[in-house]
Amino acid sequence: MAQYNMDKLYEAVEKKGHVCAGLDTAPSYIPPAERRRAASDSGAVLAFNKAIIDAVLDAAACFKVQIACYEELGLAGLKAYAETLRYIRDRGGLVIADIKRGDIADTASRYAAAHFSGDFEADFVTLSPYMGMDSIEPWLSWAGSAGKGAFVLMRTSNRGMKDFEYLELAAEGAAAEGADTKTGRRGRRLYEAVGEKLSALAAVKKGKYGYGAFGAVVGCTERDEAAFIRETYGGLFFLIPGYGAQGGAADDAALLLREGNGGVVNASRSILRAWTETCEDPEEAGNGFAAEAARSAVLNMRDAVRAAVKV
Amino acid sequence: MAQYNMDKLYEAVEKKGHVCAGLDTAPSYIPPAERRRAASDSGAVLAFNKAIIDAVLDAAACFKVQIACYEELGLAGLKAYAETLRYIRDRGGLVIADIKRGDIADTASRYAAAHFSGDFEADFVTLSPYMGMDSIEPWLSWAGSAGKGAFVLMRTSNRGMKDFEYLELAAEGAAAEGADTKTGRRGRRLYEAVGEKLSALAAVKKGKYGYGAFGAVVGCTERDEAAFIRETYGGLFFLIPGYGAQGGAADDAALLLREGNGGVVNASRSILRAWTETCEDPEEAGNGFAAEAARSAVLNMRDAVRAAVKV
Repeated sequence: MAQYNMDKLYEAVEKKGHVCAGLDTAPSYIPPAERRRAASDSGAVLAFNKAIIDAVLDAAACFKVQIACYEELGLAGLKAYAETLRYIRDRGGLVIADIKRGDIADTASRYAAAHFSGDFEADFVTLSPYMGMDSIEPWLSWAGSAGKGAFVLMRTSNRGMKDFEYLELAAEGAAAEGADTKTGRRGRRLYEAVGEKLSALAAVKKGKYGYGAFGAVVGCTERDEAAFIRETYGGLFFLIPGYGAQGGAADDAALLLREGNGGVVNASRSILRAWTETCEDPEEAGNGFAAEAARSAVLNMRDAVRAAVKV
Repeated sequence: MAQYNMDKLYEAVEKKGHVCAGLDTAPSYIPPAERRRAASDSGAVLAFNKAIIDAVLDAAACFKVQIACYEELGLAGLKAYAETLRYIRDRGGLVIADIKRGDIADTASRYAAAHFSGDFEADFVTLSPYMGMDSIEPWLSWAGSAGKGAFVLMRTSNRGMKDFEYLELAAEGAAAEGADTKTGRRGRRLYEAVGEKLSALAAVKKGKYGYGAFGAVVGCTERDEAAFIRETYGGLFFLIPGYGAQGGAADDAALLLREGNGGVVNASRSILRAWTETCEDPEEAGNGFAAEAARSAVLNMRDAVRAAVKV
């Protein structure tokens, strides 16, 4: 049996820290001179990504590639997407395909084949749970055979998460779970029902560090719930968005970790666009300069999260 | 201002009936001789799709293309996907890209550009609401400028829909909406909260037949709720899965229609694989035979739904 990628990710966090470097590369993030020099936007994106990957590979636990940025560039963009994933994996890096797919069982099996093998093979994917667990389970068969992992949306970091994820469920379910006495709230929220189903799934495919092959996406933007969430879903490794631009700080993220592990903290723009903060003339910047700035940003973030964990 | 595609779809239903022909084309659905003859699976899929499209264009209101089937074939598969969409649109057909995307606002804007323009341009998309309305709204700006439409997952037809879509919400929300007195249920379900937000969105971009530019996915597998759903969400045009293989019949689907319109009923396998029911020797079948069988299946389904509407 293959080792679970989630175990490899745990080990990467031990060694390299908690940063998940997001390659949500929009052409506008690339130094203008490099963009002009490239034959196409998709070519410019790939060259920029390679420079960033080389610069931060030893300082980031993993990478996350937002497929929307590549789909926007059409077929050529998806070629750059495929080559970005391959570049990371060829260098021993771990990569999360941020695809947020979610569809009925037959279709989920096709999606899983698409993103766990072939041109678009990644180590992890992100999934959306709305349609129910039969849209998640088919992906799990890849955990045993190929070690693949997933992060399922649970409580995200965007403003709109209050629309549905945060809705309070009828009290019957809450009483049955005892969630209301534990938290002082009247009923559990939708995201808790998702977390509970995911915890059951994680228990079926549990790695050697106590985390399931499948984890959850939990934003670090709601500080007051973080300790409750970390305690309640002990078997779930977290992919943590919301750091930096979305308002989360290192100590918010640290509340979602446990014994210095159990989660990776994603940042994208603050890494990819770090060069715009440090260069005096954007026209003078190249990918080398951008990569150095990205590396500094990753190291600073890594150290900030590590320091927050130790407090 | 562009005419809303949802108005065009309404008119297509008037003229051609309610069938949405699903091009969820797996290579295994294609006559074996055609598959062997093709240079690649993706080439075989495209040739098969073209034969089906030509055969049913005048009998189906629209097409739905499940992108997972194409992603599974990698970059070559996505080229076949792009060419399938273009083939339909060049012939004046309407096409729904079944992509079920759902992501935060910035990313949603990128996805919208990806699927409403460029290589992957479609007339409609399907979307997943889990992350909230800020993951849906950015798509809506394409309704005004380019007439584009969407169907947001509301109550789907898979078994797993009971996991989350069907969860009962705390009574406070239900009382505020009056839903409990109307339906005799204690509280509304999650899918009703989604439907309510979608209805508000639909009211902002309302077409000339009373339906919003954005509609909803509602399966025809839960017969006892159909009348309630059709009545409650009067401004939403429905994309109706669950027909045939998933257990829904013509009269189940008809309950989700109104005055003979207001929805399209999707079928995929029963159309694409109709040839396997009628040919004596699978080795003898070609795309022409498969296309004729698909046409018969579409006509039978169209007539069955029309008859159920008139009862």
